[in-house]
Amino acid sequence: MALAAGLRLARVLLRPNAGPRGAAPGGLGARCFGSPRVLVEPGPAAGVAVVKLKSPPVNCLSLELLTELIISLEKLENDKTFRGIVLTSDCPGIFSAGLDLMEICGRNPAHYVEYWKAVQELWLRLYLSKLVLIAAINGVCPAGGCLIALSCDYRVLADNPKYCTGLNEVLLGIIAPFWFKDTLVNTIGQRAAERALQLGLLFSPAEALQVGIVDQVVPEDQVQSTALSVLAQWMAVPDHARQLSKNMMRKATVDRLVKQRDADIQNFVSFLSRDSVQKSLQAYLEKLKEKKA
Amino acid sequence: MALAAGLRLARVLLRPNAGPRGAAPGGLGARCFGSPRVLVEPGPAAGVAVVKLKSPPVNCLSLELLTELIISLEKLENDKTFRGIVLTSDCPGIFSAGLDLMEICGRNPAHYVEYWKAVQELWLRLYLSKLVLIAAINGVCPAGGCLIALSCDYRVLADNPKYCTGLNEVLLGIIAPFWFKDTLVNTIGQRAAERALQLGLLFSPAEALQVGIVDQVVPEDQVQSTALSVLAQWMAVPDHARQLSKNMMRKATVDRLVKQRDADIQNFVSFLSRDSVQKSLQAYLEKLKEKKA
Amino acid sequence: MALAAGLRLARVLLRPNAGPRGAAPGGLGARCFGSPRVLVEPGPAAGVAVVKLKSPPVNCLSLELLTELIISLEKLENDKTFRGIVLTSDCPGIFSAGLDLMEICGRNPAHYVEYWKAVQELWLRLYLSKLVLIAAINGVCPAGGCLIALSCDYRVLADNPKYCTGLNEVLLGIIAPFWFKDTLVNTIGQRAAERALQLGLLFSPAEALQVGIVDQVVPEDQVQSTALSVLAQWMAVPDHARQLSKNMMRKATVDRLVKQRDADIQNFVSFLSRDSVQKSLQAYLEKLKEKKA
Repeated sequence: MALAAGLRLARVLLRPNAGPRGAAPGGLGARCFGSPRVLVEPGPAAGVAVVKLKSPPVNCLSLELLTELIISLEKLENDKTFRGIVLTSDCPGIFSAGLDLMEICGRNPAHYVEYWKAVQELWLRLYLSKLVLIAAINGVCPAGGCLIALSCDYRVLADNPKYCTGLNEVLLGIIAPFWFKDTLVNTIGQRAAERALQLGLLFSPAEALQVGIVDQVVPEDQVQSTALSVLAQWMAVPDHARQLSKNMMRKATVDRLVKQRDADIQNFVSFLSRDSVQKSLQAYLEKLKEKKA
Repeated sequence: MALAAGLRLARVLLRPNAGPRGAAPGGLGARCFGSPRVLVEPGPAAGVAVVKLKSPPVNCLSLELLTELIISLEKLENDKTFRGIVLTSDCPGIFSAGLDLMEICGRNPAHYVEYWKAVQELWLRLYLSKLVLIAAINGVCPAGGCLIALSCDYRVLADNPKYCTGLNEVLLGIIAPFWFKDTLVNTIGQRAAERALQLGLLFSPAEALQVGIVDQVVPEDQVQSTALSVLAQWMAVPDHARQLSKNMMRKATVDRLVKQRDADIQNFVSFLSRDSVQKSLQAYLEKLKEKKA
Repeated sequence: MALAAGLRLARVLLRPNAGPRGAAPGGLGARCFGSPRVLVEPGPAAGVAVVKLKSPPVNCLSLELLTELIISLEKLENDKTFRGIVLTSDCPGIFSAGLDLMEICGRNPAHYVEYWKAVQELWLRLYLSKLVLIAAINGVCPAGGCLIALSCDYRVLADNPKYCTGLNEVLLGIIAPFWFKDTLVNTIGQRAAERALQLGLLFSPAEALQVGIVDQVVPEDQVQSTALSVLAQWMAVPDHARQLSKNMMRKATVDRLVKQRDADIQNFVSFLSRDSVQKSLQAYLEKLKEKKA
C-alpha cells in the first residue's frame, strides 16, 4: 500500500495550502483546493470550479501531477458547495501529453506499482465523479490526456488542426489497458475503438467530432466559455437523480477494474519489465530528446 | 402475487367483451381483443391489427391501461392469425405521457409493488413479442411512452416539432430503472444514452432521427400508413426465423430483468418511499394542476 | 473429432503442393501456401500475401474450400515472414455466396457436425488472426461470405450496385448463429444488427458504407490496390502491440464460442435436422436450379 501511504503523505503536505473551511464557494476559497500543479479557480457561477493542469511544458502525468489532481478532485467532491468542474490546461497548446514516460522507463517495479495505482485512482475518481465534469480541451490531447477527457461527462475541443486526440499508445509499442479500452468503447463504440486502438489513431478536430470522441468543436477562444455553458445545462438537472443515472451507466465499467485492480497492476508491471518494452520506450525517449536539442 | 391475481381478475372481467373465437382475422373479430382503453382494429392486410391507446387525455400508463394493454397483447399473441401490430394512440397530439404519477405518488408500498409489476410485465411482453411491433408515434412521447416505442421493432414518428421523445425521468428527480436504460442503450448506443439519461433529453423529430431513437420521421398524416408499409416489409420474412433472430438479439437484455425482478421491485418501492422523492413528485403534480387551472 | 481427423488428412494430402520451406517471402515461395481452391499470391510488398478464393462459379463455402482456406491461413500465420493478407475472390462478380447449401441439405448429422466445426474453425482463425486481414470485396457478398469479410480488420467494397452484402440467412428460414450475430454487432452496433438480422438485409455499397458494414467503397478496379494501401497503413504499427490490442478488442467475443463450441454444434445440427428447415432449404435449392436451367 505504498500509494495509499504516499497519498496520505501528500495530503498532509498539501494541507497547509488549504484556506479556511467555509470560505465562499466560487470565491477566493476555491483556490484552497488547488496545488502547485493543479490550479483551482472559481467559476463564474455558484458551485462551479475551473481546474487547470499546470505542469509545464506539456502536462505529463507525473506521479506528482496525478497525486495533486486526485487530491484536488477529492476535496472538490467532498465540499458540498461544488457541483461541477471545467477541466482544462494552463499549458499553451497542450491539454496533457499523457502518461509520463520518465515514470515508466528505467525505474524499478515498486515505482511502477505506485505509479499505476495513481493512474487507476485518477480514472476511478473521474469516471464516477458525483460532480459534473466538462473537459475544455485547449490543446493536443493524446493517450493518457485523452483518457482524462474521455472520463469527463462532455468534451469540448478547440478547433485547431494541431489539436488531435486519441489513444495512440500502440505506436510506442505499448498497449492501453482494458479500462482505457472500455472507456473508449463506451464513447465511440466497438468498431471505431477497434480501429482507433490498433492503429493508434489521433483524430483531428473534424474527425474527432465525426467519430464522437469529442462532443463539440468550437473556435479556440471559446473553448472555456462553451464548456461553462454546457456545464450550466448539466447542472440544471437535479443532482441526485443525475448522479444515480451516471452511476447506472458507468458502474459496470468501473467494477471491471475494481474487481481486478491488483491483477491489472501486475499485468502493467510485468509488461513494463520486459526488455523489449523498455527498449522501445528508451528509443522513443531518445528521439524526443534529440528533437528538443 | 397481488398482480397475478389482479390480472386474472381483469381477464375475467374483460372476457365478456370477447367475441366468438374463430372470427375472421382482420375482420370484426379483431375488436374482441380490445377493451375500453385499448382499441384493437383490423388492419388492411391479413394478420395485422392496429392497437390504439385510448385513455384520454394523455394516455397516462395507469394500472388499468397497463393491464388492458398487457391482456390485449397476450390475446393477440395467442391468436395465431395475427402476425403483426401497429401500436399507436387514439389521443390527439400525444402517444403516451408515460407512467401515471397518480399511481406512484401518495400511495402505499403494496400499490407500488402491484404497479411496478405491471410495468415490468408490459415491457417483457413487448420486448420479446413474437409479433412484429411497429410504433406509429403520432404525438408527444416522453418517459414510459418512449419505453413502449423503444420496445417495438421499428419506430415511425410524426414530423411535428412538438412531438418530442426521450427518457426524461431524471428531470422529475426520479431515475429510469436499468432495463429502461438497457432498452435505450440497445437502440442508440452507450454514449448517446449516457447523455440522454443524465440530461433527461427530449428529442425533436429531427434530433430523434439523428440519434436513432426513432427510425423514420414522416408527415403527420402518413404515420399510420407508413407504419403499415413497414410492417408489411417485416412480415415478408418467415416468422419462425425472424422470431428466433429477435430472441437472439434481445433475450440477454430481458434475462437481466427476469433474474432480478423482485430486487427491481424492491428498489423501485424503496426509492419511491423516500420523502425527498415523494416531495419532488408532489411538487411536480401541483405544477401540472396549476397549469390546467 | 471427425473434423480434426479430416483436417489432418487434408493437411497430408495438401502437403505435396508445398514448396521448399524457406523460399523467399513475397516471392514464388508464397504460392506454396496455396491450394486448388485458395490461391496465395505474393503481394507487392514484403510480408504481404494476396489470398484469392477460387471455387467457381460462386465460391460456395464447401467443406473443401473451408478446409483449404483454414490450412492456408494456418500456414501463413505460422510463417513469420508474413504479416498481412488481402483476402479477395478470383470469381468474377462474387466474393463468396456463403455456406454451401449442398453441405447442409439432405446429408446426415455426422456430416453437419463436421461441416459446422469447419465453419467455426474458419471464424476463430480469422477473427483473432495475428495477421492483418484486409477484405477486398470484389463481388456479391451475402451470408457466410459477409461473415468472412466481417472477421477481417478492414473491408473495402467495390462500388457496383449489384455487390450487396449482409447476413441474410433469415430469408432462407434459417438463422445466423450467435457468433455471426456478435461479429455483426461488434461492427455495426446492436440496433443496426437487430434490423439487419431480422430482415435479412443485403446492403448496397452506399448503404453498406452508411451502416458501417464496410469501411470504404471504391471504384471496382481499385479494390485490390486500395486494400493493399490500407494494409500498408496497418502494417506500419508495431506487430506485437497491434496484436495485443486486437486480442483485447475481440477475445471476449471469441471466448463466448470457445466455451460452448459443442453446444453450438448441437444446436446447429438439431436445427438442420428439422423437417421444416430441410424443406425450406430444399425449396430454395430447387428454385436455384430452375434459375440456372
